[in-house]
Amino acid sequence: MTDSHIVSAFDRDLEKIQAHIMKMGGLVESAILDASKSLKTRDEELAEKVRRDDKAIDELEELINEDAASLIARRSPTAGDLRLVLSVLKIAGNLERIGDYAKNMAKRTTVLMHLSTVEGARGSLRRMAREVQLMLKDALDAYIQRDVELAREILQRDREIDQMYNALFREFLTFMMEDPRYITPCMHLHFIAKNTERMGDHVTNIAEQVIYLVTGEMPEDSRPKDDLTSRDPELGMIKE
Amino acid sequence: MTDSHIVSAFDRDLEKIQAHIMKMGGLVESAILDASKSLKTRDEELAEKVRRDDKAIDELEELINEDAASLIARRSPTAGDLRLVLSVLKIAGNLERIGDYAKNMAKRTTVLMHLSTVEGARGSLRRMAREVQLMLKDALDAYIQRDVELAREILQRDREIDQMYNALFREFLTFMMEDPRYITPCMHLHFIAKNTERMGDHVTNIAEQVIYLVTGEMPEDSRPKDDLTSRDPELGMIKE
Repeated sequence: MTDSHIVSAFDRDLEKIQAHIMKMGGLVESAILDASKSLKTRDEELAEKVRRDDKAIDELEELINEDAASLIARRSPTAGDLRLVLSVLKIAGNLERIGDYAKNMAKRTTVLMHLSTVEGARGSLRRMAREVQLMLKDALDAYIQRDVELAREILQRDREIDQMYNALFREFLTFMMEDPRYITPCMHLHFIAKNTERMGDHVTNIAEQVIYLVTGEMPEDSRPKDDLTSRDPELGMIKE
Repeated sequence: MTDSHIVSAFDRDLEKIQAHIMKMGGLVESAILDASKSLKTRDEELAEKVRRDDKAIDELEELINEDAASLIARRSPTAGDLRLVLSVLKIAGNLERIGDYAKNMAKRTTVLMHLSTVEGARGSLRRMAREVQLMLKDALDAYIQRDVELAREILQRDREIDQMYNALFREFLTFMMEDPRYITPCMHLHFIAKNTERMGDHVTNIAEQVIYLVTGEMPEDSRPKDDLTSRDPELGMIKE
């Protein structure tokens, strides 16, 4: 009986941490949507809200880190359980990064207020951010339900994000070459595009954690190969 | 006696992991130096070597992750010891990211071969990378020696990296406005500058871990405030 008591205490603790993860995920999803909306509608107040709210995301990550450390210290989990706890830390870390990128987008929104408008780009960026937010939603669902199929699907969808980024990169180059007044705003818009593409990478990391948790193996070749694009000087899609 | 036996077994295991960290750090330092050298001297072979060698860095991170998980599982460390192990994971994660940025720099070196030369920029980028490599060296020394003063100094030096980045951002804008042929190469050079600036952030994270390990507290306000620059549309220094 002692054994099953320890197991269920561990499960209860882990569930509490997972609840924090889901809350953190919800906040990050909102941050992505709000940041891209503020960019599209030039809503400085909303951008300011995103920047403010990032604090809550950071605090949740800290809480999760502490709870996980205390869980390990108190329950001395087995190797399998330990893997669960460590994956929680990784997921929280990725969520925190995505939140940072959303905050960065909101900061650039404010900067972009004072620069020439680049037609169309904000709409494309908003669509891209919306896609990433949906991917994140599914990645967190896949995590809670340990749904490997859904997780694998996310790896595929990240390639579409990469393609959206590539298209935007070319578009920005064209704008900048057409008119030097577009150079500064396009540099910022390009950063936003790149950061959104990186958000997609972090969502992919979360999906990979799900696959690892269920199958015990990290997906081989999960990241899109970049050999072609890194040889094309016009393409910005160079993966870190 | 059992207790002291367990403690020293933990210490021995931890030392082994720390040796991996130092090896990983050495590889990452080389990657930074080689990548920036290949950029400066347009040495495609050296760039290729950096890209190849990144695999060894990634493998070391995996090894460290596994060893740390196994250490936790086997030794059930106390709260204080657990903090040591978790900080090792964080440091390895930051080293891996820095390695990725170096690899990315090497990839762009190859891309830049085919584009117009931007005078002077490569020299500045190399100096910036050299500074980051020295910071990393000191951060790892600070970690091994638990030297808080040295760690705090690194937080200060990161501000200089940020300033170097800001200067480069302005320089690239000027180049691009002068001649549209500079736009594409400057986009790539700008990425390299931004990624080098991010390397500095990851080195700073390592220094912060040292401070946390020794003092038990994360340094408040360690990151430069960005309020001013994020309101200046000409400045690219917007921290995530």
